[in-house]
This record gives sequence, structure tokens and C-alpha cells, in this order.
Amino acid sequence: MTRKVGIIGAGHVGADTAFSLVTQGLCDILVLIDQDQKKAASQALELRDMASLTRSRVAVIANDYAALGDADVIVIAVGPKTLLRENRLEELAETRAAVREVVPKIIASGFNGVIINITNPCDVITQIIQQSSGLPHARVFGTGTSLDTARMKRVVGEFFNVDPKSVNGFVMGEHGESQFVAWSTVTIGSCPVADLTGDRDVDWAEMDTAVRGGGWQILQGKGWTSFGIATATARLVDAVLSDANSVYPVATWDDTQKVYIGQPAIIGGGGVVQRLQPELTSYENIAYLASARVIRAAVDAKED
Amino acid sequence: MTRKVGIIGAGHVGADTAFSLVTQGLCDILVLIDQDQKKAASQALELRDMASLTRSRVAVIANDYAALGDADVIVIAVGPKTLLRENRLEELAETRAAVREVVPKIIASGFNGVIINITNPCDVITQIIQQSSGLPHARVFGTGTSLDTARMKRVVGEFFNVDPKSVNGFVMGEHGESQFVAWSTVTIGSCPVADLTGDRDVDWAEMDTAVRGGGWQILQGKGWTSFGIATATARLVDAVLSDANSVYPVATWDDTQKVYIGQPAIIGGGGVVQRLQPELTSYENIAYLASARVIRAAVDAKED
Amino acid sequence: MTRKVGIIGAGHVGADTAFSLVTQGLCDILVLIDQDQKKAASQALELRDMASLTRSRVAVIANDYAALGDADVIVIAVGPKTLLRENRLEELAETRAAVREVVPKIIASGFNGVIINITNPCDVITQIIQQSSGLPHARVFGTGTSLDTARMKRVVGEFFNVDPKSVNGFVMGEHGESQFVAWSTVTIGSCPVADLTGDRDVDWAEMDTAVRGGGWQILQGKGWTSFGIATATARLVDAVLSDANSVYPVATWDDTQKVYIGQPAIIGGGGVVQRLQPELTSYENIAYLASARVIRAAVDAKED
Amino acid sequence: MTRKVGIIGAGHVGADTAFSLVTQGLCDILVLIDQDQKKAASQALELRDMASLTRSRVAVIANDYAALGDADVIVIAVGPKTLLRENRLEELAETRAAVREVVPKIIASGFNGVIINITNPCDVITQIIQQSSGLPHARVFGTGTSLDTARMKRVVGEFFNVDPKSVNGFVMGEHGESQFVAWSTVTIGSCPVADLTGDRDVDWAEMDTAVRGGGWQILQGKGWTSFGIATATARLVDAVLSDANSVYPVATWDDTQKVYIGQPAIIGGGGVVQRLQPELTSYENIAYLASARVIRAAVDAKED
Repeated sequence: MTRKVGIIGAGHVGADTAFSLVTQGLCDILVLIDQDQKKAASQALELRDMASLTRSRVAVIANDYAALGDADVIVIAVGPKTLLRENRLEELAETRAAVREVVPKIIASGFNGVIINITNPCDVITQIIQQSSGLPHARVFGTGTSLDTARMKRVVGEFFNVDPKSVNGFVMGEHGESQFVAWSTVTIGSCPVADLTGDRDVDWAEMDTAVRGGGWQILQGKGWTSFGIATATARLVDAVLSDANSVYPVATWDDTQKVYIGQPAIIGGGGVVQRLQPELTSYENIAYLASARVIRAAVDAKED
Repeated sequence: MTRKVGIIGAGHVGADTAFSLVTQGLCDILVLIDQDQKKAASQALELRDMASLTRSRVAVIANDYAALGDADVIVIAVGPKTLLRENRLEELAETRAAVREVVPKIIASGFNGVIINITNPCDVITQIIQQSSGLPHARVFGTGTSLDTARMKRVVGEFFNVDPKSVNGFVMGEHGESQFVAWSTVTIGSCPVADLTGDRDVDWAEMDTAVRGGGWQILQGKGWTSFGIATATARLVDAVLSDANSVYPVATWDDTQKVYIGQPAIIGGGGVVQRLQPELTSYENIAYLASARVIRAAVDAKED
Repeated sequence: MTRKVGIIGAGHVGADTAFSLVTQGLCDILVLIDQDQKKAASQALELRDMASLTRSRVAVIANDYAALGDADVIVIAVGPKTLLRENRLEELAETRAAVREVVPKIIASGFNGVIINITNPCDVITQIIQQSSGLPHARVFGTGTSLDTARMKRVVGEFFNVDPKSVNGFVMGEHGESQFVAWSTVTIGSCPVADLTGDRDVDWAEMDTAVRGGGWQILQGKGWTSFGIATATARLVDAVLSDANSVYPVATWDDTQKVYIGQPAIIGGGGVVQRLQPELTSYENIAYLASARVIRAAVDAKED
Repeated sequence: MTRKVGIIGAGHVGADTAFSLVTQGLCDILVLIDQDQKKAASQALELRDMASLTRSRVAVIANDYAALGDADVIVIAVGPKTLLRENRLEELAETRAAVREVVPKIIASGFNGVIINITNPCDVITQIIQQSSGLPHARVFGTGTSLDTARMKRVVGEFFNVDPKSVNGFVMGEHGESQFVAWSTVTIGSCPVADLTGDRDVDWAEMDTAVRGGGWQILQGKGWTSFGIATATARLVDAVLSDANSVYPVATWDDTQKVYIGQPAIIGGGGVVQRLQPELTSYENIAYLASARVIRAAVDAKED
């Protein structure tokens, strides 16, 4: 009956994901864990301070791995010490060590639900989590290009003066430099965006750059990013908890390329129900394969 | 500052639209009007009984045309006495008379906002409202095929076991028998639905029938329909009030066909900001024109 | 994980409760049952038509008693054929028969959750349901004076021009003629309302009448009442599902008076966690006992 | 029609208030301003990244004082450079200078709405804002003891195992060391908490300390506090925007003590509609006066 969510990592991303879940009442019990136990306890206290001001009650617990045993979803948001790095793959050594410490504790709790990974480099770390957890591929996925897709919808929506919610389509590939906007999927009201430009000149490459560089731009201004990813993660958590079978772009397992990589998938109670494989242009297919290669290289190089 | 919405008609549809708006806190003041003043007063009283149980306060007023002067949106939901008619156009004579009584009172209040029409036959009545109100076409639109589109998403979503929210595409044409599912626009995760059938046989014509017949099926069971249309209308009201520029299928003015007819459009603070004209197949284009003809015939015949 | 709610009775009250739950996304699976199976199926279809327009997915099933086996909460809202009766106890013979048919089917499904009864006369019927279900008193309660309390907050809030949400206090006793506003509990911002009247004359008896007569007034205007009770019930369902331990006035078991009767109680995952017994004035205590007597008389007379 | 909110200060508190407003769709246009323009722009970008993932659209603008001219509410959340100070009054010199720079720019925009101040020391700074703005006392108030009250409800609710939402009552006085829990106002279901202790020993002074020290405890763990205050502020903003006349504890003007000080008040479209003055015990009255004296001393000493 009660919907229980665990969040590993009480930094900006983990805490703001918790803040979003509690604000919206999207779960009933929240377990917040961080290796800095004082920080996790303090975040939990703040979240519990909200209880008289929100619509639906959420109990918040801190630092209790045993409480994860019957959790439905665990969000992994362990961060690196430094965020202002130019390349997301650089974080790998540090965060890989962190998840390798965390995952066995999760599994030891008896946890048998769905893991959603946010930790970067997202695609690679998701694969490491899946492997070390022993959970089926379906039940471990990453936020992947969900945030990049939200950014694309913001950029496109603002360009065409349309609600970003009404922009369809996906950013695919690595949640990192090699990602690409699958422009052939981007539509507004079933119209391909290229048909909506009227007599305006559109610099699509510039839009690509605005999407890819969105995170970097935010990082430089505030020092971290969290609102977008926290909001996307809250939606993914809700899709699992309500067994919604909703479509979101996530980092899911590509059995041909043998990597986790961003693409649209159906998300339900058991995690990834089905990969959707929209027909891409040849150019996009090449970009996808190139991106898979970048991820695979990082995976293969990971034990250096 | 305060978002004020008027609803004309306190029958099932008007009252359930009000119920949905108050439940979600989507406006601040609601004016409910019906020629049966006792009914409107009673609905308003019930809606005010909710005030201690909802998140955000909505003041509810009954039977006051003067209060519409500074309303932002007015929803017209005046119904016919009989609902169980096979053809929506049959209702025309009755509801035409009703809106002709109502619209001058709205305009006399000094109202200068957006009118959303639900009254059936929706396309024809929307046109009559626009004409008798003297408001620009952009500021008068009908719910049109928004409900039919929601039904299509339900039928398709359930067939493919996908969240109906993740089904994109539109039902277009008349909100009535001559409507059509624009299958070329229907996608799930940017995949055309035809590509997702795997080895299942799909009887698309049967799906068409399920969409078109959805309302009739509900009518026979409960005697009226209201939850779907009330929910769709609440979203349209929110799109106007928050100046969202969101895409919804509505009955909007087609200046070539000279009728109001269902199709995707961008809805913002000023009503219909732009018609979107997705590229249709020849078959769909013919269906659209045929449907426009059906509506026009009803409009032209309207004074018999 | 998934929150499953059953609703028995697909008339106005049951259906509007479902509408409120689906609009707010307060559960994940909803089972709607009515002896008029066509009506239940039709309501379910309408509720499923909402799926593309709401925030969180709710699956809706109709007419399946077996599906209640793992439900967390069941709402009983079987209504009488006639609503415009002056005395709620008159409905007893009819609704008693209805719940006696329904409860064994619920229990046969293996159901082991919480039952919330709306069916009138609410206090008496709740007792009958508890007895025929064999469930502990804690796990069966009625909506009781929750709606009357909401009406009191509306009446008081409107008199003092204050948000009804900011009015505290309770209507207690029978959900019927013998109920009473426990004025000693009614405060705004911790100020007893009597201290807030300034130099205005307040006719408290008239307010009492407005509260008690609120339902009758609505009945006469629209023929039934449902928005208020549906909204109150949705909040109670949420309190159980999220194990919130929230305080609401409900019809709960008074072990001294041996009746179900309206009073504040703490509602959590197991139903009624604790009766709260605010200190009442002597007058209010007498009113409470008198009301309990009225209910007991109806219970004792029930097999005539 | 559109609800426009300005937030001055894009640090943790201002940004999380914005995050809460956007997540809940509680306004339509948000103007975010900070003297670090890059930070404000970056926060705004993140908030706009949420647009495809939230229910209702909120447009977010950064760094534009002119855009405040027609704002309905402005939240002032300019923070000091250092948070880990033991006494809130110590921050005064720094934040006083900051608001004296900010307020004239607000007024120059033509702003004529309601100002809600969060900046600490809250009571003193609210008075400075009112004076330098020239707005009536009613239209300038501070979050005051709203967060302390939320903490009290958390502490009491957790002690009695009751939903904090179901705890009524107020923390009053300074938002600082001299604040006090007005225990005579604290009830659960209209029962004074002292009546609910059963045979448990309650150390009320310890609870007082837990409430007063709640912020300090959180500060030490995460370095700042923001979720609680952001959530409380979002509710206050909603009360103003929907003209709700809801009761909240805020820092409002006490014309006898000549200070802004925390106490329950009715909040509507014009700001503070009315102070509510619950009857306090002699001890609480003394605590109130003592707290007012502390604030006044800070106000009087402010130009040293």
C-alpha cells in the first residue's frame, strides 16, 4: 500500500528530488541516506518541517539502509566532490567507487524493486549499478537524456513561443557530450518543427549547442544543477510507483550495443517495460552508434 | 491578479467542470450561472462546501451575470433537455436558442475575455457564439475534438498497454459522427502506432468506432457524459489563464472552410494563438473536408 | 506499492468520489462496482477517458469483486432509490438490505483493509457493515459528520470572511438531524469564534440551522449532493493510504454508547488509530448523548 | 489575470521558494532577481528546464526590475554572506544595507502589491522594508514565526504520532531566540496537547528547545535551511494571490508595541487583513512583550 522511495545521496540533486517528491506528495515514506550522516539527517529534518504545509503526508527517515528492504524505488544520486568539470566522463573514477560501496548495502537490505540512477557519468554508472546489483536490466535504468530532453523542449518551446510541454521528441545517446537531438522526432502538435519555421531562419546547430550546453551554463551560474533533474526524476518515480507505463527518455540497456544509453522507453512498475525505437534518419543513427561507442569506451576503460 | 472563470450552465457538464476547477484550485473566483437559478445556487453551495478540504481557495458565486464583466474565461455549457439522441446535430435547434439568449447577457456585462464552448453540436454552436458575441475568432473556441482525442488516447493506450498520456496525435473534424482519427499523427514515443503492432492484428476501423462511439456507450450506461469533457475543459481553462501556449485539439475557426472545426491549435491568454496544420494523408484531408461540409450544412440550415 | 481503492456504488456519490480521486491522482488502481453493471462500466469508461489529461495514472476497473481482495480501502456508497426524504433514518430499511448484500461479497474476496462508509443513515449503516464484515471496529468507519463539519467551516468562514480551511472545530453526533456544532471547539487562529464577533450580533442557532440544513438545501436545488462528500471522502482515503494519522471527524465506534457516532479521530493506515475526545460543555455533552440515543434507537429498531 | 510573483534573492531560500512555486504551478509569471545576475539567470534557466515536466506553465524571467511594476507579490529573500551565526540579529547590519538598496528599485518599478519578507532578522528587516517602501503596514509582512510554527507542529506531531497538519497553534514573537511556543493555543483535534499525554512524561521545555533550535540543527548539517521556509512562503504567496483570507502566523505590525512581530493573522489579496489575537496566558503575554522588546531594541539600535 505505502509507496516507499529511497534516495542515496543527500547533496543538491538527491535533496531536491526529495523536496519535489514531498512537495507533490508522490510517495508515502522516503528514506534519505548519505555517507555524511549529519547532512542526511539535516535534510530529512527540513523535509519533515514541511509536513504541516503540504497536501499529503510523507514520512521521512534518514540513514537507515535496513529500511530499504521493502522500498519500491531507489534513486541513486551520489555526487562527485567537484562539479565544474568539462567532461562528464571525468567523474567516473570517483563516482564508480562511490556506487560500488553503496550498491552492496542496498542489496543486503533485501531490496527487490527498481533502481533509478542519476549519478554521472549516468550511462556508465547505471551499467555498473546493474552489474553489481545483479538485478535484471529492466529494473535498473538511468535518468539519461531525460533532462537533456527537457532542455530541448525548453529551447524549442521558447524559440517557437509554445509551451515546452507541447513539444514532443527526444534527445538520445549519452547523457554527455556525444548526445544528439533526434530532430526527426521533434514535433509540435504533430507538425515537424522544420515545418513551423515560417520565414524565420533557424540555426539548428545553435539549438543543439544550447541543449547540450544547458547544464554547463547553469553550473557556471549557480555552481550545480538540480531543479530540472529533480523534477524529471520525480516524474520517473511516479511512473514506477503508479505502474503507469508512461514514455520517458531514460538510459536503458541496449542489448545490441551492450551499453546503457538514452532513448525513449516505457516505464512501469517493473522499471523499463519496453524500449521504443523510433525510426531515425541515417545521420541520427550514426550519431547514436557513435554515442554508444563513447559510452562503451568509458565502460571498457573503467578499470584503469 | 485573481483568475476569474464564468460557467454558463450548471447541469452535469458545467457543474463537473466547476468541480474539477475547484478540486485543482485552477482559478480564484468562479461564477456559476443557470437559467434554473435554484440549481446554480445549489451547485455553488456544494462547491463552497469543499473549501475546507481543498488546497487553494476558490470563491464561488451564483447567478450573477454582472460578475462576468471582468472574467478571464467563460465556459458555455448549456445543455439540451434530452441527451440520448443519436445525432449531435439534432440538438441544434434547442441549444442554438439557448446560447442566443445567453451571449447578449455576457456581452452586456462588459466581458472581454475568452469564451470556451462545450454546448453541442459544438462546432456549429461555437460559430453562433462567435457571431452573436462579436468577439474575434481567436477569442471564441470550442472543446471540439478534445474529448474525442482523449478517447482515442484511451483506446490506443489500452490497446498497446501504454499510459494514454504518452500517446500523441489527434482526432480531427466535427465533434460528431463525421470526425476522424488522424492516424498519421498518432504516435507513441515518436513511433507511429502502426510500427508498434508487432505480430498482432489491429482492426483500426474498430478502434475508430470505439473512439467515435465512446460517448454513446457512456450515455447509455449513466445517462450523460461529463468527467472526460470536464477534465479537458479544466485543462483548456488553465492554458488560457496561465497564458501557456499549449497545444490542444479544439474547435477553432478555419478561414478557408468558413467553419469552426476540430484540430490542434496553440492556446494561450488570448485564446487560439495559432492553428497548427499537421500534414495529413490524402484520405485524412478528404475526411477533414467532408467533416467541414457536414458542419457547414448544419450552419447553413440552422435557421430552418 | 500500488494503492488500490474499491468503490461500491456508482451513483452520484460513488462516481464523484472516483472523479475526485482520479483528478488528484490519489490512488493507482480503482475498482468501481455497482449492481447496475452497465452504469459502473460506463462510469469507469468516463474515468479512463481522463487518463491523458491528469497528472498521475490511475487504472480503473469495473464490476470485479474479486479485484477487491488486495484493495487497501473500500468506500461504500450504495444509495437509496429516493433521496428527497426529510429524515435520513427513513432510508435505513432500503440501504441496510443493500449493504447486507454487498459486504459478504467484499469479505469473500479476501479483503483485509479499511472500509469507509458513506451510505446513509451513515452511523447506523457503518455499524451494520462492521458487524457483518467481522472486521475490527478500527478498520470500519463512516464519513459521519465530516461533511457537516465542512459545512460548518463554510458557514462560519463566510460569516467571518475567513478561509474555511482556517476554521477549526467539529460538528459531532449523528450525520442527521440530531447532530450538533460543538461550538466550544470552533476557533479561528486559536481564537474562539465568540471572541471574534466584534459588535456584530450573531444568531448561533441560525448558523446551526444553516449547517444542519445545508444538505437539504442542496438536495432541493440539484436533486442530490455529492461534491462535498466526495471531496471529504477523498481526503479520508488519502489519510489511510499514506498512513497519515490525520485528524478528521468521522463516524467511529463509541464503546461506551455502543454506537458509531461522529467525532474527531486520528485516521491512519489501519483506519481509526484513536478517538479524540475534546472536552465539551455540559450542553454539548447532553447533545452528544441525545444524538447517540437517536442512533441507538435506529440500530435497535432496525430489524422491525 | 496572470499571477505575477517577484523574488529578490536567488540564493538557497529564494531559489527554493521559486522551485516550490513552479513545481506547484502557484503563479504564472516569476521574476527572479539577484545582485549576482549570473546566478539569477542560471536559477531561472533551471526553473525553465522544468516546464515540460510540470502541470501548469510558469514563465520565468531573470534580473528585470522593470518587470516588477505589475507584480502581485514580491518575496524578499536577500541573504547574508554568512549563515552560521548564533544570533539572528547579528545579521542585521549586512542585510539592512541589502534591502535598503533593493526596496527603492522595487518602488521605482511602480510596484503596488504585497511584499513578503524572509530576510533575517525577519521582524526588524520587515519593518525597515515597510518604512523604506512607504507601503501601508498591511501590505508588508514577514514570514516571521511561520517556519517556527511548522517546526512546532513537526515536533508535537511526531511526539504524539499525529500528522503535523492536524496540530493547531502557534509559535509567536521574534523569529529568533526570544520566540515562544504559545502552548495555550496548541491543540490536536480541539484537545489541548496537555490532555493527550496519557501517562507519558512530557518535557515541554525540551520541546520548546527542539522548536527553537530546529533551524540551527539543520544549518549545522547542511549549511543552510530552505525547504521549510520555501514551502511556508509558497503557501503565503498562494493566500495572497487567491485572496484566500487564510490564517497563518506571520510577522505583522503590532501598533501598540510598534514592531513587526510573529503572530497569527488573516492573509488575503491585500496582505494582512486582520491580526488575530488569541487569548494568551500571563506567562505567554510576558514572553510576547519581552520578545517585542528584543525586536524593538534591534530596531532602535539599528543605525549604530
